[in-house]
Amino acid sequence: MKRRDFVKGIGIGTLATSSLVTATASAKPKIKWKMVTTWPKNFPGLGTGANFLAKTIGEMSGGRMEVKVYGAKEIVPAFESFDAVSRGTAEMGHGAAYYWKGKSEAAQFFAAVPFGLTAQEMNSWLYHGGGMELWREVYAPFNLIPAAIGNSGVQMAGWFNKEINSLADLKGLKMRIPGLGGEVLKRAGGTPVSLPGGELFTSLKSGAIDATEWVGPYNDLAFGLYKAAKYYYYPGWHEPGTTLETFINKEAFNALPDDLKIIVMNACRIANQDMLAEYTARNNKALHTLVTKHKVQLKKLPDEVLLKLRILSDEVVSEIAGKDPISRKVFDSFSSFRKQVIEWHKVSEHAYMNARAL
Amino acid sequence: MKRRDFVKGIGIGTLATSSLVTATASAKPKIKWKMVTTWPKNFPGLGTGANFLAKTIGEMSGGRMEVKVYGAKEIVPAFESFDAVSRGTAEMGHGAAYYWKGKSEAAQFFAAVPFGLTAQEMNSWLYHGGGMELWREVYAPFNLIPAAIGNSGVQMAGWFNKEINSLADLKGLKMRIPGLGGEVLKRAGGTPVSLPGGELFTSLKSGAIDATEWVGPYNDLAFGLYKAAKYYYYPGWHEPGTTLETFINKEAFNALPDDLKIIVMNACRIANQDMLAEYTARNNKALHTLVTKHKVQLKKLPDEVLLKLRILSDEVVSEIAGKDPISRKVFDSFSSFRKQVIEWHKVSEHAYMNARAL
Repeated sequence: MKRRDFVKGIGIGTLATSSLVTATASAKPKIKWKMVTTWPKNFPGLGTGANFLAKTIGEMSGGRMEVKVYGAKEIVPAFESFDAVSRGTAEMGHGAAYYWKGKSEAAQFFAAVPFGLTAQEMNSWLYHGGGMELWREVYAPFNLIPAAIGNSGVQMAGWFNKEINSLADLKGLKMRIPGLGGEVLKRAGGTPVSLPGGELFTSLKSGAIDATEWVGPYNDLAFGLYKAAKYYYYPGWHEPGTTLETFINKEAFNALPDDLKIIVMNACRIANQDMLAEYTARNNKALHTLVTKHKVQLKKLPDEVLLKLRILSDEVVSEIAGKDPISRKVFDSFSSFRKQVIEWHKVSEHAYMNARAL
Repeated sequence: MKRRDFVKGIGIGTLATSSLVTATASAKPKIKWKMVTTWPKNFPGLGTGANFLAKTIGEMSGGRMEVKVYGAKEIVPAFESFDAVSRGTAEMGHGAAYYWKGKSEAAQFFAAVPFGLTAQEMNSWLYHGGGMELWREVYAPFNLIPAAIGNSGVQMAGWFNKEINSLADLKGLKMRIPGLGGEVLKRAGGTPVSLPGGELFTSLKSGAIDATEWVGPYNDLAFGLYKAAKYYYYPGWHEPGTTLETFINKEAFNALPDDLKIIVMNACRIANQDMLAEYTARNNKALHTLVTKHKVQLKKLPDEVLLKLRILSDEVVSEIAGKDPISRKVFDSFSSFRKQVIEWHKVSEHAYMNARAL
């Protein structure tokens, strides 16, 4: 919020209510927080989502709180942000929970699970199915309070330079696909590779890799991946509703007055919804551009391949439950919610989309 | 927020920040608003959604603002709330935009459109596709500012006492189905009936009507409709993502200080997301109860019937565009967004749900 708008806001407050509002308002921002992120500064969708969250907190606090966003490497490298916030170097961080698998295997359930929950299902599990309480439990030993602050929706399966007609075509396939999806590909005979976003185009173009997934049309178009691969496959079985997160230093949070605590947590919910709405709108435009302007060939992964990937995914995800007691607890909650919500969405969301496509 | 918690919150604020916070905090709530609703007080999902919105505004304002919720008939009857807020009898209202068709035909696009947008698509259109700006334009002549404050997700097609095997089975069917869905049924040869929720059970049980739609498993289970009908049909083609709304008196809103303006509008976004998450979780549990405990027979409307209903729906919805210039403008925006987002969701949400169901 600009100082000018802020003062203007107060003017209205004074007329409408009491002089006490003026007293608060004339105070300069007292609480200054740093937000470290796992994205390059202003990275479309994700980095801009961090900016949106910071701005929302600032505006709702009437300027009493100011959150400054730092891109990866500005204070700490991307994957050190969890530790940095844990020890209080920054008050909050912005990333995705699967990055912290090394800290806790259970963290993966709060980002993306192959053949797991969609964005709508994930929010339902988190806010009304016990998921949020479990997430807090998982992060508590690290002195952190988590919150969901965005969702990409269903991603794309990725860019390929060869056709995938059967499971045999995945054998030996060198593909950039991190995390649980990568483990599934490995069990299907492929070779998962881990590469930062900035290296995808060159690696694909040079043939160093045969395929890569990234996010969806909006981010993929910006990277120009259509110039490096023949086919754009769907659906993103490995990331069906990737949840982005913030993690907040517990002492910093506890030191906030109650209304700012509520404002910070609620700003997270707004950011969570806004990112999904933005991705939905931008993906839909970018897909149109990719298909009509750049003549990208969209291809669906064959059912036989999807079915086999699903079986392997269930195997990989179930194994996490065996790692430690908290992972078992999260897996049980996630799985039972998933099972039941699939039954409901079969007759609602899914059946409706089928009807609309007739 | 309780007075006790409020004071406790301030204590923390004083330690962490400045004494000015204490000055504000010791002030009693200065801004008191009334919210009239179109639901019975505390009605599950919808009435409780109004309570959630009021509570969120109160908490985020640190007690500076207090919104009191009134059920239908407590101040004005349900369908007079639009006028009541317009003239300032209450500062805000809680309903669904299709109730105000008589005020503006265009309003219907902001609630539920047969074969229209899902919840995720609707939010994307509203927040990132120009929908919200149009909604404000539609309500401006009535001295009102609208916001989305909830979504039911895809509803059910309804409870039937006869099987629907072909379009011929809709002929002469006496069904409670209001709004645009009712108009579509009429064109298919049925007889749409308008009845308040409280009369559904008796009318269905006595045979006064052959069928009724209501919301989804959560609300339908509470009404005991499974005791009055044989079949529970899906999907809810007529309400694929019903958006609930608030409408705020313009002068009352403009008199708020800037941070409270932002808090009120953001509380709406939180309520919007929360209701969908709650409906998703509760519908999924209630469906399980209906099927396993009450042995309800779920039936899908035949494709032939759905296809014909879609064609009739397109006809009915297109006709709204011809009513007046603003309806044309909203229809054009809605339709072009719908067309493009369907293409995107074919390869994402829909394709993923197909893959998961293999």
